[in-house]
Amino acid sequence: MGKTVRLGVIGLGSVSEKYVPHIRALNLEGNDCEVIIGCDVRPGKAERARGWGIPAFTTDHSEVINHPDVDAVVILTDMQSHGRITREALLAGKHVLVEKPMSMDLNDAAELVALAKVSKGHLVCAPHVTLSPTYQAMWRHIAAGDIGRPLSARGMYGWAGPDWDPFFYEPGGGPMYDLGVYNVTTLTGLIGPAKRVMAMTGIAIPERIVNNQKMTVRTDDNFQLLLDFGNQCFGVVTTGFTIQRYDVAGIEIYGSDGTINMLSDDWDPHGYKLWRNKDGFWQDHTDRNRWRWTDGIRDLIQAIHEGRKPVNSPEHAYHVLEIMAKSMESGRLGQALPILSTFTPPRFDAVGQRVAPHLDHAPEI
Amino acid sequence: MGKTVRLGVIGLGSVSEKYVPHIRALNLEGNDCEVIIGCDVRPGKAERARGWGIPAFTTDHSEVINHPDVDAVVILTDMQSHGRITREALLAGKHVLVEKPMSMDLNDAAELVALAKVSKGHLVCAPHVTLSPTYQAMWRHIAAGDIGRPLSARGMYGWAGPDWDPFFYEPGGGPMYDLGVYNVTTLTGLIGPAKRVMAMTGIAIPERIVNNQKMTVRTDDNFQLLLDFGNQCFGVVTTGFTIQRYDVAGIEIYGSDGTINMLSDDWDPHGYKLWRNKDGFWQDHTDRNRWRWTDGIRDLIQAIHEGRKPVNSPEHAYHVLEIMAKSMESGRLGQALPILSTFTPPRFDAVGQRVAPHLDHAPEI
Amino acid sequence: MGKTVRLGVIGLGSVSEKYVPHIRALNLEGNDCEVIIGCDVRPGKAERARGWGIPAFTTDHSEVINHPDVDAVVILTDMQSHGRITREALLAGKHVLVEKPMSMDLNDAAELVALAKVSKGHLVCAPHVTLSPTYQAMWRHIAAGDIGRPLSARGMYGWAGPDWDPFFYEPGGGPMYDLGVYNVTTLTGLIGPAKRVMAMTGIAIPERIVNNQKMTVRTDDNFQLLLDFGNQCFGVVTTGFTIQRYDVAGIEIYGSDGTINMLSDDWDPHGYKLWRNKDGFWQDHTDRNRWRWTDGIRDLIQAIHEGRKPVNSPEHAYHVLEIMAKSMESGRLGQALPILSTFTPPRFDAVGQRVAPHLDHAPEI
Amino acid sequence: MGKTVRLGVIGLGSVSEKYVPHIRALNLEGNDCEVIIGCDVRPGKAERARGWGIPAFTTDHSEVINHPDVDAVVILTDMQSHGRITREALLAGKHVLVEKPMSMDLNDAAELVALAKVSKGHLVCAPHVTLSPTYQAMWRHIAAGDIGRPLSARGMYGWAGPDWDPFFYEPGGGPMYDLGVYNVTTLTGLIGPAKRVMAMTGIAIPERIVNNQKMTVRTDDNFQLLLDFGNQCFGVVTTGFTIQRYDVAGIEIYGSDGTINMLSDDWDPHGYKLWRNKDGFWQDHTDRNRWRWTDGIRDLIQAIHEGRKPVNSPEHAYHVLEIMAKSMESGRLGQALPILSTFTPPRFDAVGQRVAPHLDHAPEI
Repeated sequence: MGKTVRLGVIGLGSVSEKYVPHIRALNLEGNDCEVIIGCDVRPGKAERARGWGIPAFTTDHSEVINHPDVDAVVILTDMQSHGRITREALLAGKHVLVEKPMSMDLNDAAELVALAKVSKGHLVCAPHVTLSPTYQAMWRHIAAGDIGRPLSARGMYGWAGPDWDPFFYEPGGGPMYDLGVYNVTTLTGLIGPAKRVMAMTGIAIPERIVNNQKMTVRTDDNFQLLLDFGNQCFGVVTTGFTIQRYDVAGIEIYGSDGTINMLSDDWDPHGYKLWRNKDGFWQDHTDRNRWRWTDGIRDLIQAIHEGRKPVNSPEHAYHVLEIMAKSMESGRLGQALPILSTFTPPRFDAVGQRVAPHLDHAPEI
Repeated sequence: MGKTVRLGVIGLGSVSEKYVPHIRALNLEGNDCEVIIGCDVRPGKAERARGWGIPAFTTDHSEVINHPDVDAVVILTDMQSHGRITREALLAGKHVLVEKPMSMDLNDAAELVALAKVSKGHLVCAPHVTLSPTYQAMWRHIAAGDIGRPLSARGMYGWAGPDWDPFFYEPGGGPMYDLGVYNVTTLTGLIGPAKRVMAMTGIAIPERIVNNQKMTVRTDDNFQLLLDFGNQCFGVVTTGFTIQRYDVAGIEIYGSDGTINMLSDDWDPHGYKLWRNKDGFWQDHTDRNRWRWTDGIRDLIQAIHEGRKPVNSPEHAYHVLEIMAKSMESGRLGQALPILSTFTPPRFDAVGQRVAPHLDHAPEI
Repeated sequence: MGKTVRLGVIGLGSVSEKYVPHIRALNLEGNDCEVIIGCDVRPGKAERARGWGIPAFTTDHSEVINHPDVDAVVILTDMQSHGRITREALLAGKHVLVEKPMSMDLNDAAELVALAKVSKGHLVCAPHVTLSPTYQAMWRHIAAGDIGRPLSARGMYGWAGPDWDPFFYEPGGGPMYDLGVYNVTTLTGLIGPAKRVMAMTGIAIPERIVNNQKMTVRTDDNFQLLLDFGNQCFGVVTTGFTIQRYDVAGIEIYGSDGTINMLSDDWDPHGYKLWRNKDGFWQDHTDRNRWRWTDGIRDLIQAIHEGRKPVNSPEHAYHVLEIMAKSMESGRLGQALPILSTFTPPRFDAVGQRVAPHLDHAPEI
Repeated sequence: MGKTVRLGVIGLGSVSEKYVPHIRALNLEGNDCEVIIGCDVRPGKAERARGWGIPAFTTDHSEVINHPDVDAVVILTDMQSHGRITREALLAGKHVLVEKPMSMDLNDAAELVALAKVSKGHLVCAPHVTLSPTYQAMWRHIAAGDIGRPLSARGMYGWAGPDWDPFFYEPGGGPMYDLGVYNVTTLTGLIGPAKRVMAMTGIAIPERIVNNQKMTVRTDDNFQLLLDFGNQCFGVVTTGFTIQRYDVAGIEIYGSDGTINMLSDDWDPHGYKLWRNKDGFWQDHTDRNRWRWTDGIRDLIQAIHEGRKPVNSPEHAYHVLEIMAKSMESGRLGQALPILSTFTPPRFDAVGQRVAPHLDHAPEI
């Protein structure tokens, strides 16, 4: 292992409460790293930085990006500024982890992908769902042919919707970018790039109470998105701020020889169930251990230490962005739209070391 | 109760093995009825009729239809002849129960609906899913506003596909007509008529072994069907001969104040789960009692005895037919298609008598 | 196959409603058999016999037993008369199927077991739980060492209690004989004979409404029964008319290398779950097909046709009787009691033919 | 709130890895507290203390107990020394939290209970299972009569057994003290003190590999424990180092009007299921939030700040100890033994504030 990875965190809102403790835990577990500067446009967040023992604070993100000791920049700001700051950081030669979406504009996102190819720095884009042990175990089963050729799939993720930020109900917000992004990332990761989309979308709840004020919803809050993976394999993603509660497998993939279902949501998976026709029973691989959805930061830090590329490619994130953008367009037009981008899903051939489940007595919380 | 309802059964294949014993059970339970003549183009089926104690047999369906003592005709023949025989029976003034679909041609089906309006006889079209206690309990919860306004829905029903009849893989066959028909009937019954459909469809498994012979599949075997119910409420039905095994709620409906899920398939429901935001917990109404999917015959016999209309209308069946036909067309065209027909879903306001579940010790098998 | 097995049924109460249709179904499925005489002390039951097409009826059970054409006697009378009629039928050289318990007196039961050894006729004693496909699959897993050596076990079966017959709350009745008998039969069948018992028992609900009349309960209605299987393997059976509802595995067996659980009750099993340490996942063998708890009649008829012994031995039924009698005694005394009897559990090495589950599309109801 | 609660932690082994971070998290959440000294007989643990930022370390526990600034002592040493150190700390007037068991000798434990009554310091004994939100919600349902009078109960907690410390297999160790203690605490908390016990116990696996060495097991590793709660209400606790895997409700209580089951184990509950006959359905209160089994430390710190008694009484812990000691004696003797001690279970009438579950989008991990 090389020298300490020094990080600058831009955006000290609620998402940073997940990333910063994760970074500290990573350091304790032996991934040499530390946050050396925090940044937020709200000066009051300096206190939060201090509370975490971050030695420096600024309200100017450029100061973080141009800090000579900063190796990697973690961008957790409002969605609208993701693209701009990511671009600046890549141009400065820094490694970047950016929360979803990398940009709200497809063209800008394409430029970021191109920039990442030539930059010294890695670009890691959330969501990081392909890094969970559950996802990777499912990937291995599919790659091994355990369900045969995938033919049909479903994803589901929704809830009642946030009441703390009007942005979620304005153009650029909405449940597809906030929630559907997970399922689209998972399904394209496991099955492969989509060739075509088709959707029904709309504003099902035209008025909301947000921050105790009534507001008019101005972006679609209800989605049924069809994905054509080629070879007559079709998937559906159901998402919306229109779902009060569900109790279903977050991801289901139906193949020519079996079925694999992810238990719980892909951002918080609890294992999976596998049916193989040749078995004639369900394998129930429930996993009580918890995985952190901020896990991309671990991968970035380890990639820097190990001199390798991060697991997730910007191309995957871009592909997901294109699908999401076209889902809304398809909903408006009432017709199928082609997906022009593609990517190569990450492989997870090697099985990590793990304790036999019956000896894993007290799962970590 | 009036006089015995006398039935003629046309088609003594495998489906009759479900209907005829059901008719006999109905008689034992006090619904005065009997099968007085059986019919099959295959003379060898005379023996099956004899085994069931049916006093007459013919290979000519017209003989059944024109039999002066026959009150109601039960049509269980191959799909291709459903429309023709139904028409003949309605013109003869008989009550008719016809297995799905009432016709393979939308125009012919429309004519049957019109004919049923002026005929002395009732027309009952399978599937009969709205008659199950589970369906009706769900209907009452939705009607009572327990989940608020329905906003999103999913249905799932598929399997590996039959290997005993090439018809399933020829034009006119396929999983939408064979399997999807149940979910479409249930969702339109519970939510209301659909205004628009959009689908991805295709032939995922181009060759099959049927009756131990390889054959080329010539109709779509894989469907993702989107339904627009108006008011920005969207549903999806996933069906196909492309699903080896599943373990999901057959029907899920997400409303503005809660969620209701049917446990197991709608043709064999095992109760339901209800979430109401105001409860804050799932109500689990698992029902171990079994319902017979041939239950339309009970309703028809009782309707005749009671001088009322059957519960299910031909208009509902026609609406479902139009949706299914347009799903394939939408799949071909890659665009949304309007649904022109409509219907009024049956109401189930009255709750039947039932034993308190904890006193229902040994459920009937 | 030999000649038709001719049966006489003694006792035409509610239990006969399960056995007689089963016998008729068996005949249709190719097990040549028929009921030629019915008997009930209540002359009014003649009508029920007629409704079933049974050609003769009597109020005198001796007439059935001594009927020259009767091969096998099915005893479904009140518990108090089981022993006496069974004895009479065995002495007449008939095959006998007797509902539980074979006798209410341990000494009389021992005599029946001895008599069965020398009689020409087979003695089949309910319950028949070892005949279910689920039980037999579990037996095979245990015999194959899939869970290692059994070390611990639980059984659970109870409900709110009957309100239609005071007998259940009088000495000789009670939930151990009515309900616990299933679990004790299953556990001793799967693990082997018990060496010792220990129990807490009591009358938890001293007054009941039965047939709309208040009555005083005079036998224990609440049981926790411990079973010592030797080799430091211990089991518990929880039963009572003190359980309003449960949602647990009916039978759980914990071994040195894994666990096997029966899904649902042992008289109505829905498959099983298997954990093997070497797998590291649960195998979920849910079985949607239903098994009839009257299945001993099938085995008896087939045993007669095939010239073999029935699967279940009277020795097993006697062993279970001894355990149940001593459970109440242990409850009174507050100390462990030895079990003196033993038996050899039936083996189920051969796997029956079955359809691959994913091709078993529409399970029989 | 008063001044900072200053803690000394004695024993810096694996259990301290749960308590110390919990104490730090409590401080961040506003419960003013800090660990000012750590202690372990192993000098090498000084480094662990330093890593946690604990300013002082000693190998002499008396130094902690007599430290003038220490308000409360947290005893996480080997079981054998619990009683002695607890006694010393109480005599020094300190508050004490001691891991289970408070003592390995019943007489010594009785003395500790007496001492705690007269001491200035509180005595909090693990396990802390009555503090979980799930436990308390169940308590309220039972107190409200939702299941009527409890009549029957089951608890289950076991696993394959530790392989890292021979102590678990020596006299004083064993699964009853290590695992069964949770279920016994929960059941007596929810139902009330036990009057009598009866058990089957034994050494099911006479040899084990511990720390890669074969050893002979010298204490019972397999238990079925019956509990008599009076009023003919009986419970069973199944525990052992003889259970490879289970998938059951950790706690089940059957009452005269309903049933309540704890989902998952009582030390890591995931909510509960409630059946009320008057509902006719299961209420499923699954709770995805995690509770920390070290929660007694929160209660102690808050009790000190608030000048109130801790929730759990030493009398409860003593009652559980007596039951466990007598379970082994009953197992040896084969007879029921009376329980002489009693206690008053804590009440949880007030419902805490909580977010409506459908708005609790991303549960804390």
